[in-house]
Amino acid sequence: MKNRPAIYLLALAFSIFNLTALTAQERNIPERILPVPETVSSELKAMIAAGSAPFWNDHPASAQEWKAWVNELASQVIKELPALREAMKVKVTQATIADVKVFIVTPDEIAPENANRVLLHFHGGGYVLNPGEAATSEAIMVAGHSRIKVISVDYRMPPDFPYPAAMDDALAVYRQLVTQNEPARIGVFGTSTGGGMALALIHRIKTEGLLLPGAVAAGTPWSDLTKTGDSYYSNDTVDNVLVRYEGWLGDAAKLYANGHDLKDPQLSPVYGDFSVFPPTILVSGTRDLFLSNTVRVHRKLRNANISSDLIVFEGMSHAQYLFDANMPEAKEFLTEVDGFFNRHLKK
Amino acid sequence: MKNRPAIYLLALAFSIFNLTALTAQERNIPERILPVPETVSSELKAMIAAGSAPFWNDHPASAQEWKAWVNELASQVIKELPALREAMKVKVTQATIADVKVFIVTPDEIAPENANRVLLHFHGGGYVLNPGEAATSEAIMVAGHSRIKVISVDYRMPPDFPYPAAMDDALAVYRQLVTQNEPARIGVFGTSTGGGMALALIHRIKTEGLLLPGAVAAGTPWSDLTKTGDSYYSNDTVDNVLVRYEGWLGDAAKLYANGHDLKDPQLSPVYGDFSVFPPTILVSGTRDLFLSNTVRVHRKLRNANISSDLIVFEGMSHAQYLFDANMPEAKEFLTEVDGFFNRHLKK
Repeated sequence: MKNRPAIYLLALAFSIFNLTALTAQERNIPERILPVPETVSSELKAMIAAGSAPFWNDHPASAQEWKAWVNELASQVIKELPALREAMKVKVTQATIADVKVFIVTPDEIAPENANRVLLHFHGGGYVLNPGEAATSEAIMVAGHSRIKVISVDYRMPPDFPYPAAMDDALAVYRQLVTQNEPARIGVFGTSTGGGMALALIHRIKTEGLLLPGAVAAGTPWSDLTKTGDSYYSNDTVDNVLVRYEGWLGDAAKLYANGHDLKDPQLSPVYGDFSVFPPTILVSGTRDLFLSNTVRVHRKLRNANISSDLIVFEGMSHAQYLFDANMPEAKEFLTEVDGFFNRHLKK
Repeated sequence: MKNRPAIYLLALAFSIFNLTALTAQERNIPERILPVPETVSSELKAMIAAGSAPFWNDHPASAQEWKAWVNELASQVIKELPALREAMKVKVTQATIADVKVFIVTPDEIAPENANRVLLHFHGGGYVLNPGEAATSEAIMVAGHSRIKVISVDYRMPPDFPYPAAMDDALAVYRQLVTQNEPARIGVFGTSTGGGMALALIHRIKTEGLLLPGAVAAGTPWSDLTKTGDSYYSNDTVDNVLVRYEGWLGDAAKLYANGHDLKDPQLSPVYGDFSVFPPTILVSGTRDLFLSNTVRVHRKLRNANISSDLIVFEGMSHAQYLFDANMPEAKEFLTEVDGFFNRHLKK
């Protein structure tokens, strides 16, 4: 069977075509029209029909421009937070843990099974967006839906604080947290950069010799900061949130890395060792630029015999399950994360 | 929170863009080059680099042309089978169950945990390809890898026997099987059309009031015979196996349906009721034209609280895990299916 191609219905196809394979390394995809799918909620249809995020191709050129850009976007997020907190029935207080700024999100009522559990949250935004209170929207949604206490880390970010500041902050908070909480009762989660940080934190915890948390939820994690992975190409322009690696995203990777190797597992956790890892749920969408970032981690976990669930939302671009708490897909996301933590965290 | 868009970092983006949403229903994707991904095995790289299946855009125009086309492709598959049987250490015998032709695939050695289990297999090929012995390649791989007895159904196909012949044959074999095997010890599986048939059979079993099998493995199932679902568009031409719905695939759907409603859950099982269903594992790839066919079923199962695992292979087009039994991704597929059946079938 060695080196034998195509034993199934394409036997002939690949036998012939392998002869010319060396001259056909790339695939030419013609221009085409992508309709709004009929197979998603009306809310997601509206997001898809809305076109590309208008700032996807912004390229701030100095520290000052980055800060102005980040602040403008953050101010828009913050405006929405009072209504979100009210709808999700949570209170948010600012605090400091191990000298790191955090937000503590407490639901009005904590579910009995979550009385002794706590979730640690890292926000998304390419290691540059969502400073301060803007960090808290996903934490508010999860805390309110699951009726569980969430600590959201307002980690330091570039341009002032590039790598490793964010990961140092993440570790410092976790190290303090385990002095007061049994690790098996701690869940770690985040989306996009937050999902990448959750994965990288596990690698770091192993290096530091600390006890692992009970479970991880990594939504469409930025697991590879280089443009490596098939969906960076196959979903180029198909994703209407990030749109392309060549937008602000690739700039943010370089700004954050600050000269460090982008393939270091602390920056691109897909390159880490997954042989010992907490149970992990991963979430993506069929149009997500980070679909490969997600499934590559899932395959590594499953091949290492780690319990890992994969969710892929139909027609969804990057992280859109966070954009409207009332969207059916958002409720499905919250229900999946709730069920996963409930199954895997110690009571 | 009602009708409020985008509470996360894209708050501004969607607030602005929703105003113009009605004029932006479609998305224009420019022409582009898709490189062979670095993130897959060398065997899969070769399959990707080989270009499109040369027969993807064949359009047999008469019953006679369909038969000639099917026979030519089947003869190529059959040539590979002796080596595959030898490598996988199985024997294949032809038999008849309830007047339906089947192949019984018996491994040289049956694993102790599988002594009282049996798997029921439906082959792929768009309801037209892989008649006779050509039906057996996936069955051979699974039987050999899991060391379990597999019954592969050589169901009737168009042009002579359109719908519902295939499903009638599937049901007849299952009905006979449960007279001699405890249903909880029976697993049902297949890829592509075979995956769709496995799902449709569960719907049919419920209608008939029979006991359900213990578990299902549906590889990239043809769950929607209409061109509905986002990846029919987003992975159009990206997938190098099926390539486009407008190839032989769409013709096969019509030939099989023979005037029946393509959205009948017996033809397109995604439209069925998933509220009572065996545990089900689903498999696809990031380039798969059937990625949406796969994840739509997964979402329906998870939303119905059915235990369901999703596997998405990096960079993989439709069903390529079956094309080379030595490819690492093929072994991962076989390992996942083996583990799933072992966890969910009664011993």
